[in-house]
Amino acid sequence: MKISALVERTGVPRATVKFYLREGLLPAGTSTGATQAEYTEDHVRRLRVIQALTSVAGLPLSKVKVVLDLIDNPGDDLFSALGRAVGSLPPYRDQADTDFPRARAALERLGQMYDPDYAATAQLEHALEAAEEAGVGLSDERLELYGRQVRGIAEFDLAGMGGSELSPIEYAVLGTALHEPVIIALRRLAHQDIAARRFGPSPEGSS
Amino acid sequence: MKISALVERTGVPRATVKFYLREGLLPAGTSTGATQAEYTEDHVRRLRVIQALTSVAGLPLSKVKVVLDLIDNPGDDLFSALGRAVGSLPPYRDQADTDFPRARAALERLGQMYDPDYAATAQLEHALEAAEEAGVGLSDERLELYGRQVRGIAEFDLAGMGGSELSPIEYAVLGTALHEPVIIALRRLAHQDIAARRFGPSPEGSS
Repeated sequence: MKISALVERTGVPRATVKFYLREGLLPAGTSTGATQAEYTEDHVRRLRVIQALTSVAGLPLSKVKVVLDLIDNPGDDLFSALGRAVGSLPPYRDQADTDFPRARAALERLGQMYDPDYAATAQLEHALEAAEEAGVGLSDERLELYGRQVRGIAEFDLAGMGGSELSPIEYAVLGTALHEPVIIALRRLAHQDIAARRFGPSPEGSS
Repeated sequence: MKISALVERTGVPRATVKFYLREGLLPAGTSTGATQAEYTEDHVRRLRVIQALTSVAGLPLSKVKVVLDLIDNPGDDLFSALGRAVGSLPPYRDQADTDFPRARAALERLGQMYDPDYAATAQLEHALEAAEEAGVGLSDERLELYGRQVRGIAEFDLAGMGGSELSPIEYAVLGTALHEPVIIALRRLAHQDIAARRFGPSPEGSS
């Protein structure tokens, strides 16, 4: 397809597509003349990945490049590549700390592995600390309940990985960045639904 | 306690405390002299709420004021006050749209109430649309699984509301803003744990 079709299919403006081509985020098309090139379905898919990472997940281009490079060259150790790809997503945390006492205790309680180099470990430590300081720290009971429900989601996610047209790294990165806001919104709406049944003025009518 | 003790207890700098006092976010202490005042445990708690909303949840002061006013004056309709308080938290979505086809279909499938004025409805619509456009749209099966697991979390949250020292609105706002990052980090770490068992170089050693 021509660049105009690529623009129409993806909704990404022509100037942005040309910028991605210049920056090497999008591979060049097959040249069909001095100023024309042909693009493929791979370009459509790659543009959607870039858009999701920049517009929705809010990644800077430097991090987008890291993720795209891991998608193209995952190497032999898929587990390590997955960790680095997902670690490129916000929220960014300072990894200068080497000890994460709250995260470690939580993961031990949940019977999960503890890798201090994995960005989510620092994220969990920071989140637990902030909750504690605000007076809404997680009791063991709450942590266990959250951990169990979230693991049910994560097991479904991993099981669905094989059936996707996306590569494992694309699936992990997009599924992490784009399904997190869904989960957050669903929790807020579940709170509303449950609260409406408990406190609402007319729960029968609105549920 | 004196202002110096308030600073020490909360870690909020003196200049920031004075700014909050001037802006009316923090009520004045009881005057004990021309330049001195006494502060109470209520001031400590209020400062922790403000800190959580600004530093962790990233709210602008205008939104912090909305939340604090709802905490102080929830009115008779607790359900409506809860909705407005949680609606003051990011991510902010344009409520100009009046139709949310994806969110409506999802909530109908989950058997939950649908209130288009509630900010989370627009958030869900936007999140589902972004996932769809990136090629990781939610199948009915995935939506039902996510909805079920998240509802388990939300039911625990609401059940714990009565046992907290916080007011219902404080609890809802802080629990929403500060537990969301915990849930997100737990999901990423559950993915890692499950992936390590499936793909890791030495799952026995690291789990």
